[in-house]
Amino acid sequence: MIILMEENASEEDIKRVIQKVKEVGFKAHPDTGDKHTIIGVVGEGDRDYILHNIGTFPGVERVVEITQPFKLASRTFRPEPSYFDIGGIKIGKDHFLVIAGPCAVESREQVFQTAKSLKQEGIHFLRGGAYKPRTSPYSFQGLKEDGLKILKEVGEELDLKIVTEVMDTKEVELVAKYADVLQIGARNMQNFSLLKEVGRTNKPVLLKRGLSATYKEFLMAAEYIMSEGNYQVILCERGIRTFTDETRNTLDISAIPVIKRYSHLPIIVDPSHACGNWRYIIPLSKAAIAAGADGLIVEVHPNPQNALSDGEQSLNLQHFSDLMKQIRALAEVEHKIIN
Amino acid sequence: MIILMEENASEEDIKRVIQKVKEVGFKAHPDTGDKHTIIGVVGEGDRDYILHNIGTFPGVERVVEITQPFKLASRTFRPEPSYFDIGGIKIGKDHFLVIAGPCAVESREQVFQTAKSLKQEGIHFLRGGAYKPRTSPYSFQGLKEDGLKILKEVGEELDLKIVTEVMDTKEVELVAKYADVLQIGARNMQNFSLLKEVGRTNKPVLLKRGLSATYKEFLMAAEYIMSEGNYQVILCERGIRTFTDETRNTLDISAIPVIKRYSHLPIIVDPSHACGNWRYIIPLSKAAIAAGADGLIVEVHPNPQNALSDGEQSLNLQHFSDLMKQIRALAEVEHKIIN
Amino acid sequence: MIILMEENASEEDIKRVIQKVKEVGFKAHPDTGDKHTIIGVVGEGDRDYILHNIGTFPGVERVVEITQPFKLASRTFRPEPSYFDIGGIKIGKDHFLVIAGPCAVESREQVFQTAKSLKQEGIHFLRGGAYKPRTSPYSFQGLKEDGLKILKEVGEELDLKIVTEVMDTKEVELVAKYADVLQIGARNMQNFSLLKEVGRTNKPVLLKRGLSATYKEFLMAAEYIMSEGNYQVILCERGIRTFTDETRNTLDISAIPVIKRYSHLPIIVDPSHACGNWRYIIPLSKAAIAAGADGLIVEVHPNPQNALSDGEQSLNLQHFSDLMKQIRALAEVEHKIIN
Amino acid sequence: MIILMEENASEEDIKRVIQKVKEVGFKAHPDTGDKHTIIGVVGEGDRDYILHNIGTFPGVERVVEITQPFKLASRTFRPEPSYFDIGGIKIGKDHFLVIAGPCAVESREQVFQTAKSLKQEGIHFLRGGAYKPRTSPYSFQGLKEDGLKILKEVGEELDLKIVTEVMDTKEVELVAKYADVLQIGARNMQNFSLLKEVGRTNKPVLLKRGLSATYKEFLMAAEYIMSEGNYQVILCERGIRTFTDETRNTLDISAIPVIKRYSHLPIIVDPSHACGNWRYIIPLSKAAIAAGADGLIVEVHPNPQNALSDGEQSLNLQHFSDLMKQIRALAEVEHKIIN
Repeated sequence: MIILMEENASEEDIKRVIQKVKEVGFKAHPDTGDKHTIIGVVGEGDRDYILHNIGTFPGVERVVEITQPFKLASRTFRPEPSYFDIGGIKIGKDHFLVIAGPCAVESREQVFQTAKSLKQEGIHFLRGGAYKPRTSPYSFQGLKEDGLKILKEVGEELDLKIVTEVMDTKEVELVAKYADVLQIGARNMQNFSLLKEVGRTNKPVLLKRGLSATYKEFLMAAEYIMSEGNYQVILCERGIRTFTDETRNTLDISAIPVIKRYSHLPIIVDPSHACGNWRYIIPLSKAAIAAGADGLIVEVHPNPQNALSDGEQSLNLQHFSDLMKQIRALAEVEHKIIN
Repeated sequence: MIILMEENASEEDIKRVIQKVKEVGFKAHPDTGDKHTIIGVVGEGDRDYILHNIGTFPGVERVVEITQPFKLASRTFRPEPSYFDIGGIKIGKDHFLVIAGPCAVESREQVFQTAKSLKQEGIHFLRGGAYKPRTSPYSFQGLKEDGLKILKEVGEELDLKIVTEVMDTKEVELVAKYADVLQIGARNMQNFSLLKEVGRTNKPVLLKRGLSATYKEFLMAAEYIMSEGNYQVILCERGIRTFTDETRNTLDISAIPVIKRYSHLPIIVDPSHACGNWRYIIPLSKAAIAAGADGLIVEVHPNPQNALSDGEQSLNLQHFSDLMKQIRALAEVEHKIIN
Repeated sequence: MIILMEENASEEDIKRVIQKVKEVGFKAHPDTGDKHTIIGVVGEGDRDYILHNIGTFPGVERVVEITQPFKLASRTFRPEPSYFDIGGIKIGKDHFLVIAGPCAVESREQVFQTAKSLKQEGIHFLRGGAYKPRTSPYSFQGLKEDGLKILKEVGEELDLKIVTEVMDTKEVELVAKYADVLQIGARNMQNFSLLKEVGRTNKPVLLKRGLSATYKEFLMAAEYIMSEGNYQVILCERGIRTFTDETRNTLDISAIPVIKRYSHLPIIVDPSHACGNWRYIIPLSKAAIAAGADGLIVEVHPNPQNALSDGEQSLNLQHFSDLMKQIRALAEVEHKIIN
Repeated sequence: MIILMEENASEEDIKRVIQKVKEVGFKAHPDTGDKHTIIGVVGEGDRDYILHNIGTFPGVERVVEITQPFKLASRTFRPEPSYFDIGGIKIGKDHFLVIAGPCAVESREQVFQTAKSLKQEGIHFLRGGAYKPRTSPYSFQGLKEDGLKILKEVGEELDLKIVTEVMDTKEVELVAKYADVLQIGARNMQNFSLLKEVGRTNKPVLLKRGLSATYKEFLMAAEYIMSEGNYQVILCERGIRTFTDETRNTLDISAIPVIKRYSHLPIIVDPSHACGNWRYIIPLSKAAIAAGADGLIVEVHPNPQNALSDGEQSLNLQHFSDLMKQIRALAEVEHKIIN
């Protein structure tokens, strides 16, 4: 960190700050420029103190954080891309993960029909929401445990792994009984209690980026999970909130190379929530693989017109088949193995 | 809602949509313009279906939502401003609520010293965090139940009401034993499980706006609480995330008149989190009361330089006293009673 | 357009609005719902009046615009993608345009060296700034007419088309003497005087999207140029301003399918300004072609470390060659001809 | 500035950077921490080089700018608030400037009627657009020189100063003949040619903040004007673009204390464009004065229902009179003289 002193900071002010920097464990390296003094803060000490409190000392203009605060999620901790295995299926590195399925679990029939077409496309991961975070309390909130049971049954019958969302610390244990991958939704990305709770399970976690989360906050959320001992985190870019109105959110495609620069964790893309409109899903999915993403999670519904949630952003089975054809063509150029 | 058909939509397309609109319970009023047909959707039916699924029908360009989806939180439900009483202290209408205290509870001494100075200023509500949502898992996470006990003791000794955050559905019962007002933090504004849980208590809830929540989402979060039977919701504008970098967030001062237009709920302002810098708190607080806010929640610390969190955005006791002097002068012009 | 009346609007209020709607040339189709009356506004009349003034009538809650306001830029005007020819080189449809070169023209030597390597890669369009919009008045402002001369000379020697920015209505004539394509920068996207001025030339215009321009505003800026008679407009997505800090801007990759849905104009991507960091340019360029873009404009400098502006976001010649290799592989899959 | 080296930067990398820092005129102060080396860059040298090019050197992770780049606009250049006089009327310090009038000049009658009511309220500055920046080329573009003549005549008759927008470098001379204050619109805040051109006149300039301009960019735009010799710049906060949809833009009320911290220039607020709805103008205007603004610019129209532009965001004469009454009450508390 760097402490920037005000131009009119006195000798006294500077001394006081340097002493405090040392007190909290760091070394202080002051540089006196022509106008401002800056104080480099190095070593190991109480970061929070410098970031949040030193700004209250007389003569301090600002504190600038220059290094990244995440540890376990960083490339420093693990220089090579993370690479793991979920029930025999490889994730990360040369593998391109495809997770597909309906937004919400509605019935066994609906899940089974979708799952069969995934199977035909050679897909291994089925998504479906049993607990649904909805903006309105009056909207369909999911089938809850009944939905989990449907997913499990269909998954076992067709040998598909199940990815499903958990929204409440009280339900983590239950959901973990049925799911192969626990999903944390965008609205819960900074629900720190929930992050710690899934960090204490041994299930891989699919962590969605919050609507207005910076890259640092996103990786710090992963850090919460990892700091509890669970290193199997898959990040998911699903669009950020901006001023645009035609798309539901703005897919931040740059998140892919940026996250890959700073972290070893795999990152996949959710084009369905990013744009909110099935018409744009194929081009955005293609952009994702071309930009280096490690996978996709996409909403597919056998009959989007009758979906109980998010029908407009779901591909039907024919469109999904088109998507996979185009993704396969790109995967070949990119030397990725789809699974 | 309005369904806008594409210019090249066929007669067939239009009929199919109209029939579906009726099937889900609404009346359909088509208007054939020179280019587009638009279909007005009126009456009572399955709103979600129209909003999320009708867009998948051939020939539909877009669905436009024109009325507000919240009910209990709306002016239609209750035309006059809500007005309630917390332990004898009036909230809303002509009353201007001031809640102050440290970001985090650190020790009995720190809380007591702050509380005494609130008392001197005639303030009735003490805030302090026992459970702290922190970006980093390595930062101080709060004293937990020990912190709640300190708040309770000091509150009883000095006759102050306690406002404190709850972060986890598992902890609602515990926190409610100690607190007079349950606070839901910005990062949990769409933690729907938590909203429902506090909605089932009989404690007033201070609901902070999410970093990128629209007004509609903010009021729908209140609706979640109210739909469980708890109508004592105080809204809190605490800054939204934008591109600006000098302030931590951007205080959306317009939220005050906008929320007051559409909802009967009281709305207060948190200038501390909005700007993240004690230097800007006084002008922003003054803006809040002048714009019609129903109160303030502000961070005050007897010794901000030693605060365990957010020192830079805390007022010291002298600055807090200055703030109150200026707020009192404005309250007089605005015919508000500070409590 | 739709006019939404307030719930408590009187019969009188509604009549007054309907009469006014008719007065300004439209037909009014009122629908009386259970709560609100909505008035559909159809036909041809004074749109501005409805959008900006009817909201002041008693009882009006809001006006909702549902159809797109652009005409010449729309798919309705021209259903097929625009396709034109710049000095023998095809733009649009199956052709993928690559424009490359330094941010600023610094010397004949620098431009020539870059241009030669474009030539080796089979590129036809050379970019370079002679007039530079810089945040600071103390930064290098470009070589002005001397820069234009260098571009022209090098362009003629190596048979390259010249793309260069014009910033001032006073300079349009001069710049048009040297340039094959006139570039309008993001900061001037709503400099309407400049748009009209370039609309009166017969030179193709490369129009960059403003930092916070909606799709509608972007297309309306194109409409300004087209309404003066110049239909050769190439749109350019170059990143929007959001809260992210690691990249200079956020590349809005969805702009490509969205613009293609509503407009016939070709759209290219500028990854250099979008991310501001050479490390991310190759993945973003690949995303662009995969998402369906009609081309790229990319900063290339023979020696980025000595560039007079924007060195950090420039590719060096080796990286540019890598980029082209990867783009060619994708172009094959996408059935695009690079030129 | 601070140069942050990558963790794996070699000795060689560090030496190369230090040498370059010195070559471009600065002193380099390296600090070797436990992980990263950081290099403090102090003294006077080629800032642009460090900011834009050093990032391309091997081993450089990032450059952090820590001091402010503006000079003439800064508090360092002039520690006290700027204070100037426009035709006998004082601007800045204890004076609260009110500028009012219609969005667009439509007729002598309309301007005269509005101007008379300003006069009755003791206001000295009349605004009105003769050249109108409109999103659509098909919207009313202003009466141009005829509009300027109307403003001038009415201004002379009623002894009011005229504030009007200039959009084109070609028109600066003409507009300056009629206007007392030249307005630069938000969309032209970074039209650098225009900024320089008005900087060469001797007329005070009202500079509106761009829709997505940071504070630094805003002050750098003022710096462009000042660097040409014209120091009479009045800044205007008029709302920034965010994700909110109920208000046209988001009034950034924090801009007032932030700008006052870093700059000596006066800053006023435009609530009309910030919210786009007459209903919210009074509370936002009150917030502005309470937060310390130096004035207001507000749209007033004798008959908003018939305004040729922006009727919905205009106050009628009665509302304007209410506004002034409330502003006067606050001005008294704030010890400001309204003029």
